[in-house]
Amino acid sequence: MITHKVMFLPHNREISAPDGGSLIEAAMEAGVHVNASCGGEGQCGKCRVIIESGKVEEGISEQLSKEDLENNYRLACLSRIKSDLIVRVPVESEVDASILNKFSATRRTARVQQLNLEDLKERGLFIPPVEKRYLDLPEPSARDNLADTSRLISFLKLNYDEHRLVVSLPVIRKLPEIFRKANFKVTATLARPVVDSGRTQIINIQPGDTTARNFAIAIDIGTTTIYGQLINLITGDILAEYGDFNGQISYGEDIITRIMFAEKPGGLNQLHEVVTQTINKIIDRIIKESGVNRDEVSTITLAGNTTMTQILLKIDPRYIRRSPYVPASTLYPLIRSVDLGIDLADHTTALVYPNISSFVGGDIIAGVMGSGIYLSDLLTLYIDIGTNAEIVIGNKEWLACAACSAGPAFEGGGIQFGMRAEQGAIEYFSIDPYTLEPMNITIGNVRPKGICGSGLFNIVANLFELGIVNSRGKFSHDLKSNRIRETDGVYEYVLAWKNETQIDRDIVLTEIDIVNLIRAKGAIYSGCQTLLDEVGLSISNLDRIILSGGFGSHIDIDKAMTIGLLPEIDPEKITYIGNGSLMGARICCLTNQIRKDVVKAMRKMTNFELSETPSYMSHYVAALFLPHTDLNLFPKLKARLMPDF
Amino acid sequence: MITHKVMFLPHNREISAPDGGSLIEAAMEAGVHVNASCGGEGQCGKCRVIIESGKVEEGISEQLSKEDLENNYRLACLSRIKSDLIVRVPVESEVDASILNKFSATRRTARVQQLNLEDLKERGLFIPPVEKRYLDLPEPSARDNLADTSRLISFLKLNYDEHRLVVSLPVIRKLPEIFRKANFKVTATLARPVVDSGRTQIINIQPGDTTARNFAIAIDIGTTTIYGQLINLITGDILAEYGDFNGQISYGEDIITRIMFAEKPGGLNQLHEVVTQTINKIIDRIIKESGVNRDEVSTITLAGNTTMTQILLKIDPRYIRRSPYVPASTLYPLIRSVDLGIDLADHTTALVYPNISSFVGGDIIAGVMGSGIYLSDLLTLYIDIGTNAEIVIGNKEWLACAACSAGPAFEGGGIQFGMRAEQGAIEYFSIDPYTLEPMNITIGNVRPKGICGSGLFNIVANLFELGIVNSRGKFSHDLKSNRIRETDGVYEYVLAWKNETQIDRDIVLTEIDIVNLIRAKGAIYSGCQTLLDEVGLSISNLDRIILSGGFGSHIDIDKAMTIGLLPEIDPEKITYIGNGSLMGARICCLTNQIRKDVVKAMRKMTNFELSETPSYMSHYVAALFLPHTDLNLFPKLKARLMPDF
Repeated sequence: MITHKVMFLPHNREISAPDGGSLIEAAMEAGVHVNASCGGEGQCGKCRVIIESGKVEEGISEQLSKEDLENNYRLACLSRIKSDLIVRVPVESEVDASILNKFSATRRTARVQQLNLEDLKERGLFIPPVEKRYLDLPEPSARDNLADTSRLISFLKLNYDEHRLVVSLPVIRKLPEIFRKANFKVTATLARPVVDSGRTQIINIQPGDTTARNFAIAIDIGTTTIYGQLINLITGDILAEYGDFNGQISYGEDIITRIMFAEKPGGLNQLHEVVTQTINKIIDRIIKESGVNRDEVSTITLAGNTTMTQILLKIDPRYIRRSPYVPASTLYPLIRSVDLGIDLADHTTALVYPNISSFVGGDIIAGVMGSGIYLSDLLTLYIDIGTNAEIVIGNKEWLACAACSAGPAFEGGGIQFGMRAEQGAIEYFSIDPYTLEPMNITIGNVRPKGICGSGLFNIVANLFELGIVNSRGKFSHDLKSNRIRETDGVYEYVLAWKNETQIDRDIVLTEIDIVNLIRAKGAIYSGCQTLLDEVGLSISNLDRIILSGGFGSHIDIDKAMTIGLLPEIDPEKITYIGNGSLMGARICCLTNQIRKDVVKAMRKMTNFELSETPSYMSHYVAALFLPHTDLNLFPKLKARLMPDF
Repeated sequence: MITHKVMFLPHNREISAPDGGSLIEAAMEAGVHVNASCGGEGQCGKCRVIIESGKVEEGISEQLSKEDLENNYRLACLSRIKSDLIVRVPVESEVDASILNKFSATRRTARVQQLNLEDLKERGLFIPPVEKRYLDLPEPSARDNLADTSRLISFLKLNYDEHRLVVSLPVIRKLPEIFRKANFKVTATLARPVVDSGRTQIINIQPGDTTARNFAIAIDIGTTTIYGQLINLITGDILAEYGDFNGQISYGEDIITRIMFAEKPGGLNQLHEVVTQTINKIIDRIIKESGVNRDEVSTITLAGNTTMTQILLKIDPRYIRRSPYVPASTLYPLIRSVDLGIDLADHTTALVYPNISSFVGGDIIAGVMGSGIYLSDLLTLYIDIGTNAEIVIGNKEWLACAACSAGPAFEGGGIQFGMRAEQGAIEYFSIDPYTLEPMNITIGNVRPKGICGSGLFNIVANLFELGIVNSRGKFSHDLKSNRIRETDGVYEYVLAWKNETQIDRDIVLTEIDIVNLIRAKGAIYSGCQTLLDEVGLSISNLDRIILSGGFGSHIDIDKAMTIGLLPEIDPEKITYIGNGSLMGARICCLTNQIRKDVVKAMRKMTNFELSETPSYMSHYVAALFLPHTDLNLFPKLKARLMPDF
């Protein structure tokens, strides 16, 4: 990737930015504020900058006069970086540097942790749960007329040291014809047992040598979205990946409404049909894209929360939402994918990730397995942030988990202009401490439509650090700006004026929105504290934090600490694994060891029902502040806010 | 049972006969010849006897004059024994006693060996493969919100010492609702593994305590007939039993024609449908008859020959009839009965008996298991007599088996007037050594329609012992009787004249018939000899013989030895187990030990392909005589035929 150096004046901040990148995003990255409320489409014309040296492309708009252009004014939101640059921000030039220091230095996101295939290979663990063996069998004769299955089994014993083999009935049905048509040169597909004491199943037999082609599918079934990957089991590579909305969203946005729908007559079957339709659509797409034949897929692993899992398996989920919140099962047997209505070959096995409880599901277990927490010495906090945030704390010795009902704020629910992280959502934000003018950056650099979860963090953290919002989430009433106003008795901040938006309304953030965010982040933070309490540890003992979830990669770690969502630890210790559930599903396709380990890991894991844990409520109440009642828990923030203490 | 003593004069033979029994059958039992060619319907009027004392009912016919009746003449075939009797046989009164001695003394059939349920119970082996456990589970609470399956499993562990449990998906689906509707008082059905290292499956869950009702079905799938038994797994008793013709007989009488049909497009599916229809019809009948609900049947065991088994399992049987005669499999996995199209509940497991080779099938293995050969010290010869006779020799240390293609003679095939053992078949026979007049007794005591297998033995053995037929099966040409005649160059014996039959034709036995019988019995005898040879033993080493098969109970042991079908051993050492396949299927429902032992027994068993065993052909050629080239193999018969040697 070609990068260029961009120096911002008068701040004297230099950063490295990609060739063709947006200049306003580079400013955000550098912690330099440029007014911009229209989100990056050149609508508001406020993000004027002077290109003192170097070359940008575009950046020109009707908002700039001929004279402006001659003086090298450009709109930052429209400018693409094409060389090293020196950029002067005119309005800011007046700003006192000491005030600028109030901003956290840079936008810092978590390091992305990916599945380490090479490491898996080096440790000899790249042994997929479904393997192929080419067999050049001796042909039967009058003196050697072993049954076809016996011939198969004894050859595998002798030549591949395979033992405890079972041949399924569908394979027995195929053997006689395939053996003879292929002159007894065949490929057997072996499915490994999930437990050590189990038996290896011969699930398929194919004519000739097909060992070079063996594939798996990993599926993450989210309440909102479903992702699938097609994996080459010979190389371990992902050949295709595709995500789509879970067809069930038409039946309710959250888990509770889905369960309520499932309780209606025929409802469970309908939801089951709909989710398998989405899965089948994803499968169609990824097998087509990768040029794999449907019957070359030997196994599929699926991970989802407990409700999604029970619906997929056609298990009535009604008791998940009723006290004492009992799931039907934790472990599920290895089954055939066709038994779930999944459109793969008859022989394809399906493994559904186990769950711990009604609210700590297979998606989290998958994340724990995929991220390798259960193998690590490091005391790790794993957080999957979403409507239902799940937390796991532990290491290779022990694991504890809990689910926090964070509410839908992170996904835009309960936020007046909240929306999912889609095009037009304000994702990055900064504010001019004097003029209180915003710099909005939207996904796709288009005019704003609303605020997504990570935008919400940024906005609230910025407003809080500048004292515009106090620790209870209330706006300061002393500030003189038309951006802060009272509507129907509720204070709000105007992020973008009606004519700058796609929705023809002012986009605002209200005090109610902020309270909802505080409740959500408070639920998660106090969940972590409670879990640590229960195991006799505190936040200072944490060696690292792993973040997972759909929007985790956008989280500005510093901002998340500022609002008190994440505990304040060295940002270097925070990693992001993206879709942990999908990662876990994938690793389960790559190494059978995971399938065995998962049972052991689950046995080590203690589930805490936070509602039944007495200390939770007091932790929660104390966390209903920005960042927390006890500012000492956030020493760096405290130092910034109160440099004299 | 009330019995009476019947004394026959002038022979001075007394036997015990059942009240109401047929007098002519008593005569047969006593080895007393009474002329009777019409088979027992009073048609020929030849079986006149004088009732010297005692009371008979019926016995009167138009064939007897008023004077005859006054002199106490009766027709033996129509007379029912109602008291102790003294009966004089008028024609025979002239016969020399020394000639009478040529007859074997009595009609001797094998002792019937039944499944010994008490013994099974005493040895602690009455542990059905599917058991029920009543569970009064603790109700979940906020502090104990284990998943439903975990609650089930841990309760079974703690209270019943059950380990290594697996819960199937259909049961997981049922748990939540049933647990709560039944207030957590439920009955679990556990299916035991077939191998020691396997896991116990929880296959069903029912509300309340249903442990008192647990049933199994045993099925024998014969090529011609199918039998089913409904078994109470609490007591071990048979509650109902029913047999019917295998619906496949419309598609060919024997295995080869069935296989040929299966090779046609759609043929296999059609034969599969038809056999499951017959099985379902039998199941309908026995569950209705015993007042059992369909879903109270927890398991079904099925035993059949290799072809019947493969068709049931929808496995193409074409290679069974093609050299080198390789079956698809020997062992079959435990499956669900619904997967075979069997109309039982979803949870009902189905075990299909394994087979050894294309020609030694699950029916024989079932017989070996049911009769307990594999546990015995006694060197046992097990013979299942039928079109395809199967032989097993061995004891608890080793087992050897082979299949002989005996041909259809025993079932009436290739015999001009051959027929199955149905009403009107001549079953018993004796002949007057002077007049050469026959005494035919038919099944059902009706006019004859033909000759069944056991009748054939009796006829040929009698003709041979009296020298009417020589050791090559040829009629003596010197005898003066209209019963022996030549038709189209072939000699034959007239068993019944046209007007005495139901078929309006003379019923005869031809030299060709006798040759076919000799080939059939020769195949079996030489098979036994060959197997013994291969293991370095001889017939004199045999401790016992177990006979199995549809018509085994009718076999007159002495006659079977006379023609050289069975080796000559002490008749006390011969037992008959009836339908060995059905017995094996039943015992498999009663004790899971059998399911485990069967694999061990199969491993001990060596299969010999007789066509590939060099000594077979010479044994076979030597056995193509009555009883055998080497009369020294039959010393008792030799003593009767040649009393001076």
